[in-house]
Amino acid sequence: MYELKPIGFVESSLVDRESAPMQPDEGAPEAWLAFVPEVADGLRDLEIGADVLLFTWLHESDRSVLTTRPRGDANRPETGVFNTRSPDRPNPIGLHRVTITAIDGLRVRVSHLEAIHGTPIADLKPVIGGIPDR
Amino acid sequence: MYELKPIGFVESSLVDRESAPMQPDEGAPEAWLAFVPEVADGLRDLEIGADVLLFTWLHESDRSVLTTRPRGDANRPETGVFNTRSPDRPNPIGLHRVTITAIDGLRVRVSHLEAIHGTPIADLKPVIGGIPDR
Repeated sequence: MYELKPIGFVESSLVDRESAPMQPDEGAPEAWLAFVPEVADGLRDLEIGADVLLFTWLHESDRSVLTTRPRGDANRPETGVFNTRSPDRPNPIGLHRVTITAIDGLRVRVSHLEAIHGTPIADLKPVIGGIPDR
Repeated sequence: MYELKPIGFVESSLVDRESAPMQPDEGAPEAWLAFVPEVADGLRDLEIGADVLLFTWLHESDRSVLTTRPRGDANRPETGVFNTRSPDRPNPIGLHRVTITAIDGLRVRVSHLEAIHGTPIADLKPVIGGIPDR
């Protein structure tokens, strides 16, 4: 068992899972990432325009789910969660490829984020090695 | 604070950080992912040949590190960890793009994995949306 400590939280106009898009290209808005003061030194060298991989902890997820129908579609077959991007899964880590659009101290604004307001931030990494996924 | 529960562990010929390559294209070997029986249903529908995103918890990392020199290179400037892929960071989540090469019950073999033997597995997701990153 390992302890994941949030390094910040998402500030977004999306306030609940039901209204949030499932994928970033489905109308996800810009959002602020508000980092905790303890990690300020780690934010050095972030740059506007950079593509980054944002890791969140999807805290409203049901961690007991092992199979699901992708996109909640009753016509699709029951699928093992590790072959889906469902937020309901044993360790609900969210992976989001976003672009930095503004930086204001401990706050970093990013494009197209489908995570809801209050989602804990777990990590942030630069994109390397070719064209990135989300 | 959130509890991350390993869903499995890496079985690899890489036994320590010092001998492990920093990136998968630097000679990383094939490895087995040995999942715990509790998540067996979630593994349904994994397929040989599929590209997947493997999330690990880099358990030997120093979580107090906020700045580092990329690749341990003394000639490179001290950089905030969130602009590096250093394993030493507040939440040491590893992201690895791998290809499934064999499946044997709870064991899944993957290509080119730079994580060391015993590394806890946090999640596994399919690649979607174009050419993936690692």
